[in-house]
Amino acid sequence: MTELYDVAAIGNAIVDVISPSSEDFLAEEGLVKGSMALIDDAQAVSLYGRMTAGIEASGGSAANTVAGVASLGGRAAYLGKVADDQLGQVFVHDINAIGVKFDVAPLAGGPATARCLINVTPDGQRTMSTYLGASIHLTPEDIDAAVIESAKIIYLEGYLFDPSDARRAFAKAAGIARASERLIALTLSDSFVVHRHREALLGFIDSEVDILLANEAELTALFETSSFDTAVRSLRGRAKLAAVTRGERGSTVIAGDQIHDIAAVPVEKVVDTTGAGDQYAAGFLFGLAKGRPLDMCGRLGSIAAAEVISHYGPRPQVSLQDLALKAGL
Amino acid sequence: MTELYDVAAIGNAIVDVISPSSEDFLAEEGLVKGSMALIDDAQAVSLYGRMTAGIEASGGSAANTVAGVASLGGRAAYLGKVADDQLGQVFVHDINAIGVKFDVAPLAGGPATARCLINVTPDGQRTMSTYLGASIHLTPEDIDAAVIESAKIIYLEGYLFDPSDARRAFAKAAGIARASERLIALTLSDSFVVHRHREALLGFIDSEVDILLANEAELTALFETSSFDTAVRSLRGRAKLAAVTRGERGSTVIAGDQIHDIAAVPVEKVVDTTGAGDQYAAGFLFGLAKGRPLDMCGRLGSIAAAEVISHYGPRPQVSLQDLALKAGL
Repeated sequence: MTELYDVAAIGNAIVDVISPSSEDFLAEEGLVKGSMALIDDAQAVSLYGRMTAGIEASGGSAANTVAGVASLGGRAAYLGKVADDQLGQVFVHDINAIGVKFDVAPLAGGPATARCLINVTPDGQRTMSTYLGASIHLTPEDIDAAVIESAKIIYLEGYLFDPSDARRAFAKAAGIARASERLIALTLSDSFVVHRHREALLGFIDSEVDILLANEAELTALFETSSFDTAVRSLRGRAKLAAVTRGERGSTVIAGDQIHDIAAVPVEKVVDTTGAGDQYAAGFLFGLAKGRPLDMCGRLGSIAAAEVISHYGPRPQVSLQDLALKAGL
Repeated sequence: MTELYDVAAIGNAIVDVISPSSEDFLAEEGLVKGSMALIDDAQAVSLYGRMTAGIEASGGSAANTVAGVASLGGRAAYLGKVADDQLGQVFVHDINAIGVKFDVAPLAGGPATARCLINVTPDGQRTMSTYLGASIHLTPEDIDAAVIESAKIIYLEGYLFDPSDARRAFAKAAGIARASERLIALTLSDSFVVHRHREALLGFIDSEVDILLANEAELTALFETSSFDTAVRSLRGRAKLAAVTRGERGSTVIAGDQIHDIAAVPVEKVVDTTGAGDQYAAGFLFGLAKGRPLDMCGRLGSIAAAEVISHYGPRPQVSLQDLALKAGL
């Protein structure tokens, strides 16, 4: 089948609600800084009521990544579930507007579009509380085999291990990708997700995953170690290719015995780290799909991540393609 | 009656949808750069469908201003109408979260919460297309006399001259304010509004307005002249106090024979001018309510405006009180 897409992603379709927050507020609310916790509708209403004024922006980890791929000039598709409501319309508009193919039917008569309540502390760190709403109603029937078969890379969120229907959708997509010899990429998403689903994730990595994306905390959680080097050694036997982000220390790309340390692109002020890992993944996967050398893939990731942490919101506000060209990539 | 509020504002309660745009896009869509045009629901859907991905943020000119007053440490109240829908909930959350008193009941079973589709060109200029939705259902019954009677300054949007119910609400509020000897401030809002309602606005200024806020284009439109100096001379006989913003040239405060030219506060990069005039008004009115000298009121306006044009969105993202303290005001 013709490769219509560089990357096709499957994830929880979420609209972000992003507000400045104090460290004290996190403590009062019992929120673990830098993590993602699942909350129900009542908790979402209650927490939102106490948060400061903010902005709303389309989010969802894998959706942010394909938005980044499109911003880099790549061809991308997305599979995820919103409700037929105002925030769902915003999500659909934004993903279509950036040129990502998305045509999963919205959920009617069920829960509202998923919302991620994001509290951003003065150091730019984001702490997420997610009401999954309609997003968990992504079912295997929503997985369009033609989209999976025509993408170079299928990108899956670890977050999808939480809801059971989504996990079946995830398994179906992986099966189709494997059958059509497509590359399968997985992001571990969050260290709490890793704790909840460690065995299942390891099994999936061993059997299905070509490309693993993670941050340092997620990788060390996966191998239950506090040492980054130990985690990297454990990884080598299991994943053909991995890219691990390390905040201001940049990222490490691991391909068997080859290791590339990639510097972070400095930014004047870190405003909001929401989407940093997602945009790194966008640059890295775009580079891979275009056949670039691994260190250049990592640099594309660094450039994309640097753009997104310099403003509120999880997706690029300027053309990443222009930024990459300016950087000579 | 006790003065509970520094400023109570009445305006169209609107959620902004803010997207980057090219100059070409404005031309293709027949949009007049820098202006505000009214559109209906079908036009809103159609235009939104062609806009790029963006962010959503609570807006509405006068609501932005009272949010700014609250951010400066002032006490503020707001009267406006949203629908009982997701964007309405966002509006209510945001205005309450910043500490502005707002308890007008949302509209049930009518049109959706008002949306302002804002296209921001690379120079930071914003061009607005507004679907008034539920906001025009603000009626005289929604005007709580106790709020008006307990505010030092009542702030009214020229935009309210468009919808007829809102204009009656506006007239009621002005009557109560006059009867209780409160100061009445008016913003001309937009040069197209001035063209549509010039005679009515002039009559209202002569009979009711203590403090006039405008930008240069609106003021020259009001007096049908191309000369700023001519407009200022015409103004002197009619408004006791006026503050006129002039973009990067700063502002001019006019009080009879006294004229203060106030410099703009320079910003590194103008990202989005949405809310610049609203935040200037916040600083100016806050200063007046606190009894500051006129030039200091203008400087407070300049500081607030500089903050808001340095990011996407019409309301401050940091504490204006902190910024004012840092500037020694």
